[in-house]
Amino acid sequence: MSLDPAAPDQSAPEPPDLDQLRSAYEELRAADLRLDLTRGKPSASQLDLSDGLLSLPTSTTDAAGVDTRNYGGLEGIAELRAMFAELLWVEPEQVVAGGSSSLMMMRDVLSFLWLRGAVDGERPWGAEEKVTFICPVPGYDRHFTLLQWFGIDMVTVPMNDDGPDVEAVAALAASDPSVKGMWLVPTYANPTGSVCTQEVAERLASMPTAAPDFKLFWDNAYAFHHLTPQETKSADITSLATAAGHPHRPLVFASTSKITYAGAGVAFLAGSVDNIGWYVGNLSQGSIGPDKLNQLRHAQFFGSPQGVRDHMVKHREIIAPKFDEVDRVLTERLGGTGVASWTKPAGGYFVSLDVVDGTASRVIELAKQAGVALTPAGSAFPYNDDPRDRNIRLAPTFPPLADVTAAMEAVTTCVLLAAAEKRAE
Amino acid sequence: MSLDPAAPDQSAPEPPDLDQLRSAYEELRAADLRLDLTRGKPSASQLDLSDGLLSLPTSTTDAAGVDTRNYGGLEGIAELRAMFAELLWVEPEQVVAGGSSSLMMMRDVLSFLWLRGAVDGERPWGAEEKVTFICPVPGYDRHFTLLQWFGIDMVTVPMNDDGPDVEAVAALAASDPSVKGMWLVPTYANPTGSVCTQEVAERLASMPTAAPDFKLFWDNAYAFHHLTPQETKSADITSLATAAGHPHRPLVFASTSKITYAGAGVAFLAGSVDNIGWYVGNLSQGSIGPDKLNQLRHAQFFGSPQGVRDHMVKHREIIAPKFDEVDRVLTERLGGTGVASWTKPAGGYFVSLDVVDGTASRVIELAKQAGVALTPAGSAFPYNDDPRDRNIRLAPTFPPLADVTAAMEAVTTCVLLAAAEKRAE
Repeated sequence: MSLDPAAPDQSAPEPPDLDQLRSAYEELRAADLRLDLTRGKPSASQLDLSDGLLSLPTSTTDAAGVDTRNYGGLEGIAELRAMFAELLWVEPEQVVAGGSSSLMMMRDVLSFLWLRGAVDGERPWGAEEKVTFICPVPGYDRHFTLLQWFGIDMVTVPMNDDGPDVEAVAALAASDPSVKGMWLVPTYANPTGSVCTQEVAERLASMPTAAPDFKLFWDNAYAFHHLTPQETKSADITSLATAAGHPHRPLVFASTSKITYAGAGVAFLAGSVDNIGWYVGNLSQGSIGPDKLNQLRHAQFFGSPQGVRDHMVKHREIIAPKFDEVDRVLTERLGGTGVASWTKPAGGYFVSLDVVDGTASRVIELAKQAGVALTPAGSAFPYNDDPRDRNIRLAPTFPPLADVTAAMEAVTTCVLLAAAEKRAE
Repeated sequence: MSLDPAAPDQSAPEPPDLDQLRSAYEELRAADLRLDLTRGKPSASQLDLSDGLLSLPTSTTDAAGVDTRNYGGLEGIAELRAMFAELLWVEPEQVVAGGSSSLMMMRDVLSFLWLRGAVDGERPWGAEEKVTFICPVPGYDRHFTLLQWFGIDMVTVPMNDDGPDVEAVAALAASDPSVKGMWLVPTYANPTGSVCTQEVAERLASMPTAAPDFKLFWDNAYAFHHLTPQETKSADITSLATAAGHPHRPLVFASTSKITYAGAGVAFLAGSVDNIGWYVGNLSQGSIGPDKLNQLRHAQFFGSPQGVRDHMVKHREIIAPKFDEVDRVLTERLGGTGVASWTKPAGGYFVSLDVVDGTASRVIELAKQAGVALTPAGSAFPYNDDPRDRNIRLAPTFPPLADVTAAMEAVTTCVLLAAAEKRAE
């Protein structure tokens, strides 16, 4: 799946020299591009797939007879909880349907842990001398930002093809009681596309932890976001953790942000019945209920759990060609040059590109000067610190296919130029 | 506006004796009522007024050309910010349009103050030895609940007809640096219906405070919720505070929960440009944006600030008769008896009923046994502690008019019975 830039293919053609690359780059700048590969946003045509929502709901009363226009129902409407319980392999009472953002739900969970403590904790996390999270890298920038906002220390472990380096995770969790948790995108991880295997998930569920209230933030943002007809199943972390005697360890997050509308979807939390009670109990101190009308709109739109899966096939048809194009340009331009390796994800929203050590920030700067916006250097690492300055996250879903091609051709020129500059140092 | 139960009208008829009242109460119980005056919820016919929302928006692009279906736009869409800026007498850049709940916005503001500190503060409130809030009573139970959840101490001051007892507020704020803030429903307060006058607002805006980062949580939930054709204007607290040299003191909250849908409206925060920047900056650490599509839906539905005002007239036509009925039954049954006083609000959602000292919880229990649910005793006080056990909050908007009549007749029987029991002690 990935090439090792440390071991260039000896049979590869000699890369263009520095002068040729500088000249190619000047041509690029003259083309006056305005392209953007920064964020994992659905494109307009993906959003169009859900425009049926605009004429829903056809009635405002949910299956339980509740008027969704009014206050109440902190845990969300029953039919949508049941639908996503099936998709997430839990019981309906183990799911809360919330507002439009799973990120805000994660922030709320952290706030509750910080101010009031976990269901299995001895004190609020804010009362601890230090709180540390394990962060698989490269990972999701917004997870790290949120941890930093809370003043939570971050220690990194490598993200491998089968999930986080579980030996490293287990060692940290076992030895340090300040290690209170870990964030993980288990399926089609941001940005590597890695899928956490059953074996790794079992280990995460069962490993001994020095902190009795260790929490696994299982951010399953891309659970149904397949790029191939093979629909990889996420590990069933709640069952695994329950079987291992740690039922309150996982907190599962999901949302329809990249299923229906990125700005107007529904977010979900799943976990043990105690965790759900803990969450709703804390939520009730400052909320009267979520937007149930939007939940009903979604329940009517999908119709069934299968309706969600079917809908995702339409997304795949739109975005898979963009990922194919990223891989095609990277392979044609950089394959065998030894200056880059990249992932070829089977799902999710990103391609993770590793360039020659010490050149990622230069590539991003060159691309910016040529009118191609890339995610800032180091974004996939805590404190924006990519120790090898080599990782670049590519997000090809939002631009039209032709723009993806143009942007990737530009990026590869920048990668080659930065590598040649480095060699010439 | 209110009667003083301590000074019964000497010309009033003798109230019925204990045996007569017990007999009346038994009849009531036999009637097997199922009535509810607990919460300030709009009725179905009020919610119907906004069903135009169900076929909106007609387009998904806002005035700035932004696709509201996608991520982004933390501060909300421009046209809705501008609309509510005019209604709240501030500039558009002084308003954030958020999610569906102003209560959650208040919780977020408290979280930000707790974890990161105020724009004009020296340290996070959570790092203080003690944080105290001034609470006018009777007040809104959810404000008190939220403060208690944060572990914030509460000291009470009386709520008068012209707003909080401002002498008491000023004395507390000036003398104690742990007094970091105060919550106030300035217009048609919950539950008394009091309106904070210009004079009281000026004093709150200008009073010296021992804490440099004192915050006035100005929860203007009922700013446009008039029960009479005279549309009382709220004091312009942001201008007053700016003029007094304390621009960052007020944080103004509003929402459409009782304008459109209680569960699917839009909430607003207004304040100084610095406060708005502070809020959005903290929000950005754990949010990618609000439900802009619902904001566009609301902007299209109202059309203009005047559209909001016009819409509120339709609410008044539905609910004013219910408030009239509450007053009619109270006056006919309890007027002149000396056992109760009550408010006759010109707006908002509540009537505050004071009964004989030491009998409020008994009245509520009697009503419950007779099938009439009232807000639990003490709800309008911090820690649910009504020191005189005399206050009952009545919420007549949700039930149909006939139910309001039946419920109020039952309540008055319970008030009279509890008073007679007390006399007989």
